[in-house]
Amino acid sequence: MTVTVQTVIERLTAGAERLSSTVDTLKYGDPGTEVRGIAVSFMPTYRVIEQAVRMGANLLITHEGLFYSHVDHDETVKNDPVYQEKVRLVRESGIAIYRFHDYWHRYQPDGIVDGLVRALGWESYVSKYEPTAAILTIPRMSATEMVSKIKERLGISFIRVAGDISALCTRVALLTGYRGHGSLAIPLFEKEKLDAIIYGEGPEWETPEYVRDAVQQGRQNVLVVLGHAESEEPGMRYLAEKLRAMFPAIPVYFISEKPLFHFL
Amino acid sequence: MTVTVQTVIERLTAGAERLSSTVDTLKYGDPGTEVRGIAVSFMPTYRVIEQAVRMGANLLITHEGLFYSHVDHDETVKNDPVYQEKVRLVRESGIAIYRFHDYWHRYQPDGIVDGLVRALGWESYVSKYEPTAAILTIPRMSATEMVSKIKERLGISFIRVAGDISALCTRVALLTGYRGHGSLAIPLFEKEKLDAIIYGEGPEWETPEYVRDAVQQGRQNVLVVLGHAESEEPGMRYLAEKLRAMFPAIPVYFISEKPLFHFL
Repeated sequence: MTVTVQTVIERLTAGAERLSSTVDTLKYGDPGTEVRGIAVSFMPTYRVIEQAVRMGANLLITHEGLFYSHVDHDETVKNDPVYQEKVRLVRESGIAIYRFHDYWHRYQPDGIVDGLVRALGWESYVSKYEPTAAILTIPRMSATEMVSKIKERLGISFIRVAGDISALCTRVALLTGYRGHGSLAIPLFEKEKLDAIIYGEGPEWETPEYVRDAVQQGRQNVLVVLGHAESEEPGMRYLAEKLRAMFPAIPVYFISEKPLFHFL
Repeated sequence: MTVTVQTVIERLTAGAERLSSTVDTLKYGDPGTEVRGIAVSFMPTYRVIEQAVRMGANLLITHEGLFYSHVDHDETVKNDPVYQEKVRLVRESGIAIYRFHDYWHRYQPDGIVDGLVRALGWESYVSKYEPTAAILTIPRMSATEMVSKIKERLGISFIRVAGDISALCTRVALLTGYRGHGSLAIPLFEKEKLDAIIYGEGPEWETPEYVRDAVQQGRQNVLVVLGHAESEEPGMRYLAEKLRAMFPAIPVYFISEKPLFHFL
């Protein structure tokens, strides 16, 4: 049976409730194209697209957008040579690019969160899945020790940590991507009686400053900031596994990127 | 002559055009109180407030908000014990707290940007001040060398850098605080023919990913992410100097904070 780009999209979006508005659209390519190979990435960088084409994939499924913005708004960059060169690469290669962001986050549990929990080997510690976080009860250890394990499991060289790094942690919330903003993360400390929050990214003046005040008041809280890509790439690697099971006749390649930042 | 809280506010806001809407308001205290001592900080943390009170200041002037949010919206935290303990400290101490954010940014040049340029010792390299950035022409050096000088000047232990760390830099834009978002920062590369942008904070999927693509296309760009506090605290230290000159009879204390993040 022929598998088209549309077949893949329908299969992926069938896993969650229908969304009336979403960034999960086919950015380039034709829904009717027969899929010969699927590449999966967290971020569709220039190098990721080149590599996907080189590997023979004609469909790239990616979590984040192509042009440095959550929404498809090219106005900022449309006259920029970096943007134009990227558009040229995509058009000349003919690769189809589908963004799989909102639907994957709406799987139950959230596919990105689930992928991170699995990458950490923490499946058995999950107490519950909230819509935007996993709440875990981990074996009691210091924040420093916990961070060391996370670095090893995820292959991260540096992690930023706010608050009390000697705090003993057992109640932990795991939030991926840009779920670090205060209105979402701060109330979890009280509501879930947390020792630690681990998140991808968030404004520095919100949750980190809350944790700093808490510690200055004598509390023992800690905040671990993984980085956006570091927190979400495992969920896209997990998606690649799922795709291999869904379409066993089609080669599926996961393309990892190097860390976004050097720490100097 | 008696200097009241209101006198200080009027003197500070006289330096920029009047704003119809602003976060620069007196958060606690009475405008008519006579000022006996002024404390200045970037972030009014719990420890900063305690220290200001201990030093004998009865007016704290601060750049960022008290409760982990840019706007005064306490709903998220009003039942939180960390919030309540902070409110208790402020109320019992009787200290007046005035936020000086929007007006200081609207001085010409922007007081926060100016303070950072001075802290870096880069006054003579400024080509021009744009409303949200300083454009500089620095002596040609590698990004690594530039970052090393910045770390030394500002006393920072770790700095995150995206892009080509071996890039030779001479055209540089300096953006403070949360001016790292793509719509503001990305167009500057082309418009100002920049080698490097140095900013405080911004979303990871915007400007850093633009720089990554640029480098993958063979360009030599670099992005230096100082941290929000690291980029704006020097501007508040500079404000303390200004206040000493404005009110020579009143003690003015600048209260620095430790780095928000540990790098593990």
